[in-house]
Parts: sequence; structure tokens; C-alpha cells
Amino acid sequence: MRGIADTASLRSPLGECQAVSLAITLQPIGFLSTPWRTLGECPRNGRQPDPAPECHAHVLPAFVPGLLALEGFSHLIVLYWLDRAGQAALQFSPPFDGNPRGVFATRAPWRPNPIGLSVVAFDGFAEPGRLRLRYLDCVDGTTLLDIKPYLPSTDAEPDASMGWLGAYATPRA
Amino acid sequence: MRGIADTASLRSPLGECQAVSLAITLQPIGFLSTPWRTLGECPRNGRQPDPAPECHAHVLPAFVPGLLALEGFSHLIVLYWLDRAGQAALQFSPPFDGNPRGVFATRAPWRPNPIGLSVVAFDGFAEPGRLRLRYLDCVDGTTLLDIKPYLPSTDAEPDASMGWLGAYATPRA
Repeated sequence: MRGIADTASLRSPLGECQAVSLAITLQPIGFLSTPWRTLGECPRNGRQPDPAPECHAHVLPAFVPGLLALEGFSHLIVLYWLDRAGQAALQFSPPFDGNPRGVFATRAPWRPNPIGLSVVAFDGFAEPGRLRLRYLDCVDGTTLLDIKPYLPSTDAEPDASMGWLGAYATPRA
Repeated sequence: MRGIADTASLRSPLGECQAVSLAITLQPIGFLSTPWRTLGECPRNGRQPDPAPECHAHVLPAFVPGLLALEGFSHLIVLYWLDRAGQAALQFSPPFDGNPRGVFATRAPWRPNPIGLSVVAFDGFAEPGRLRLRYLDCVDGTTLLDIKPYLPSTDAEPDASMGWLGAYATPRA
């Protein structure tokens, strides 16, 4: 058992009535290099820039052995820590929409747990521990938490409906 | 700025040579109910059981306002804390394969940061704060960290190649 040890406490009658904060330790495994130096420069999503610029994931030497057999995956899921997201807001009105939306119905960074997620194209290694990626949208220097192989058998839902965001979808080439 | 405050330290010549542990606080936003009471009972992935059983995400009352406007999304991405994953291993030989693989080339739970991710079908609310989901594969009571809307415009790569995992892909209906 690691981290949040006793999830059962969340299930008690008392626990269900209150939010719980539990400190866990995350290990940064590296950082992301992108062309965007400030939040204001970042695109709305990684598919918006055309062509998508090459970005890099720098994996710290201690974690490089975990990259074995990553070749051959065309796409990856990267998780990162949105440390510049600011205070969490449960509801807000997106500037391009105007209606109040719950944060869990958006991909906004100011989440209770600001873990960012991008599905990216993996163009191989620039050198050991440095991955060439496209479709990132985060600010340069963002802390990398995890890399997972993208599996179309469980991750691809091309016909999914996008709810209120459907009207604002980024067209795909 | 929240959490990991100074990612710049990762970029220093010293920082790039060593792993860094930084304590950040994650807030459980609820928990997941599944039919699987032990790790041994869990399916290999959420698409393996046919039919996929109905699972639930229970969102703590404090976070329920964040669910506004979630209706209309057919699929969601859920992030959860794999607190029963055990000690992280950077390389291991999967029992169904036998060759050593880096953990970042797998979806195994024993990761440096054991954050689980599932793309799930969202079948609406059983009651406020309780979401009906299919395609979860985690153990009952798993701590919920985040819910994101699934956006095919940025998340769907149905033609992605699966590297060494291609031979073991779960067929889609």
C-alpha cells in the first residue's frame, strides 16, 4: 500500500459528507519542453497549432530504464502537473462560451487535482531519455509525472459525443 | 503557483542528474465502485469483460458542483490513485509476454506515480454525484482524483500502433 492508504475512510457515513485532503508524494520523472513560455502563449489544445511544433519530454536519468520497449508505439499519453494553474474553481464560464460549466465537464487546468493529460504523437528519441512529441499544449518546463502507451483498443472512441463542447471542437485533418 | 513550485530546479545541471521527490497534496474527489474486491479479481483491462458491468463513480458532495454540464458527453477520462499497486518497478517481464519491458511502455499499476487512467462510457447519473460508468478495471473503493470529458478531436487515435502490445490487444466489438 502506498500513498492514500485508507480509501475506506471516504466511504464512511462521515467521510462521504466531507472533502478529505491526504498528502501523497509524487515523484517528478522529468519535464516537458514546449515553445510556449507563458500560459498566455499556450494554444487552446495541442491540435490547434498547424503544423504542430516538435516538443520534447526530458526523462530524468533515474527513470530512463522505464522507457524500454517504448519504440513502436505511435502515440502516448503523458500526464503532467499543472503547477501554474492557480486556484481551483469548481464552476466557471469559459470565455468562448459564456455559460457556467463544471470544471469536470472541461479540460481547464484549475482542477481540484491539477493533473494535465495529453494524447501525443511519439516521433522517437532525440537521444536516450529525450522523446520527440507533437500535440502538447502546456507551458515550457511543465513537470512530467507519467508516460503511458496509447492503446486504441481501450483509449480510442472516435465517435464519442462531446456535450456542450461539440460546438467548439478543433477540426481534425 | 501550487504544488510543485519550482520545476526550474529539475532543469539545472545537478537536477537533471538526480530524481527529485516533492510532496504535493492531492485531494481525493470521491471513489470508484466496481465488482472487483481484490487486485486478483480485476480484469486485464476495462474492455475485457463482456458485457462490461456497470460501475459507479461517487463524487464527494463538496465536488458535485464541478459536474455541471457533464450530461451530453458519451465518454469520460477518469484518473484515480492506484494505492494498492505496491512498490514501483521500472522494468519487469509481463506474464503474458516474458520479455523485459519498461513500465512506461506498459499500463501496469506499479508506476513511479501510480495514477490510473481509464476511458469509460458515461451512462448518466444514478443520482446527483453518482455516475454510471462502463469499462473500469480497478479494484472496488479506488480513490478518484479527476474526471475529464473525453474529446475525440484530441483524444481519439484509432489507427495508433501499439508497439510490443499489438499482439495482445483486446478485440473491439
